[in-house]
Amino acid sequence: MTAGFAATTIDDIARDVGATKGLVYYHFRSKFDIFLAAYGEGMRRVRERVEPHADGPGTGRDRLVAMSIAHLVNLMEDLAYHHVVHQAVRGEPSTALKTRQRDALLALNRLRKDYEQMFHRVVVDGIDDGSLRRVDPALATRTLLSNLNAVDMWYRRVEGQSGDELHDLARRIVDLLIGGLAD
Amino acid sequence: MTAGFAATTIDDIARDVGATKGLVYYHFRSKFDIFLAAYGEGMRRVRERVEPHADGPGTGRDRLVAMSIAHLVNLMEDLAYHHVVHQAVRGEPSTALKTRQRDALLALNRLRKDYEQMFHRVVVDGIDDGSLRRVDPALATRTLLSNLNAVDMWYRRVEGQSGDELHDLARRIVDLLIGGLAD
Repeated sequence: MTAGFAATTIDDIARDVGATKGLVYYHFRSKFDIFLAAYGEGMRRVRERVEPHADGPGTGRDRLVAMSIAHLVNLMEDLAYHHVVHQAVRGEPSTALKTRQRDALLALNRLRKDYEQMFHRVVVDGIDDGSLRRVDPALATRTLLSNLNAVDMWYRRVEGQSGDELHDLARRIVDLLIGGLAD
Repeated sequence: MTAGFAATTIDDIARDVGATKGLVYYHFRSKFDIFLAAYGEGMRRVRERVEPHADGPGTGRDRLVAMSIAHLVNLMEDLAYHHVVHQAVRGEPSTALKTRQRDALLALNRLRKDYEQMFHRVVVDGIDDGSLRRVDPALATRTLLSNLNAVDMWYRRVEGQSGDELHDLARRIVDLLIGGLAD
């Protein structure tokens, strides 16, 4: 779905997953239901990796670094899911939604807000314990998350890249985002 | 064109600019030619604002901050153009291109590379003069530019926002990107 939801056809999806169009329709009632399933699975996966670090040991900065690295590693490993979630952040779908679809979308958007709120809480912790600068927590959280997500603009999986190499790249990017370019 | 190039029809474009489809076709031979014109104009506008700061006075950090603020102010003021340029960064169009279209696209992509190279040069200056940390210049440049561009994910024009308010918001975001969240 890298081309974006609106431009993706059921045929594209069927080809991507190596199935027939009939099989895709057997499992999902519409293209929007596929989007909802992928959005939900993407949120579940990233949250599962990141949440344990929010309440872990260390300063606010330590926890924010660990959460951000986990978010980035998840993005790099699950680029397809990430694109779908990112799509959801970018804007609401223009298709007319059925009630159950709208309810499902709102529930997922709430999950995403909770996820963002978790980062906000740790930024505030870091400012309070002196491990982060006295920044505007709302602007800092939004900037950090959108910077983490922007990595999907240029990151492409390198064949044979090990888990350690991926983690090291994530660590270096997060060091730039949290530590900045200047001392 | 916020929905993305592939999902945008000539009818959408005509509606956005308050023209008829016929008038749009009178000026442009195809949807792709409209994209090329907007991409070119977007690059021209951002470069005109940012370039003077690259060779201005001050340390590498000072110049990088001034360039980044100018880039962001341009993005916020010219959001529609920015979306088109960002689209070009995201991936090549899937439509078959005529030779003149491919040549025009390659020339614009080269302009964009030059633009990125200008940031890279100032990052290296900042590392050399000690105003920036000893970061990996290529990764730092790519991260900074993708972070600046990611602001289009959440920034929406606020009615009645003054030029000073816009500049102040840009300055605060750039402070987070260059200075980081931690000391």
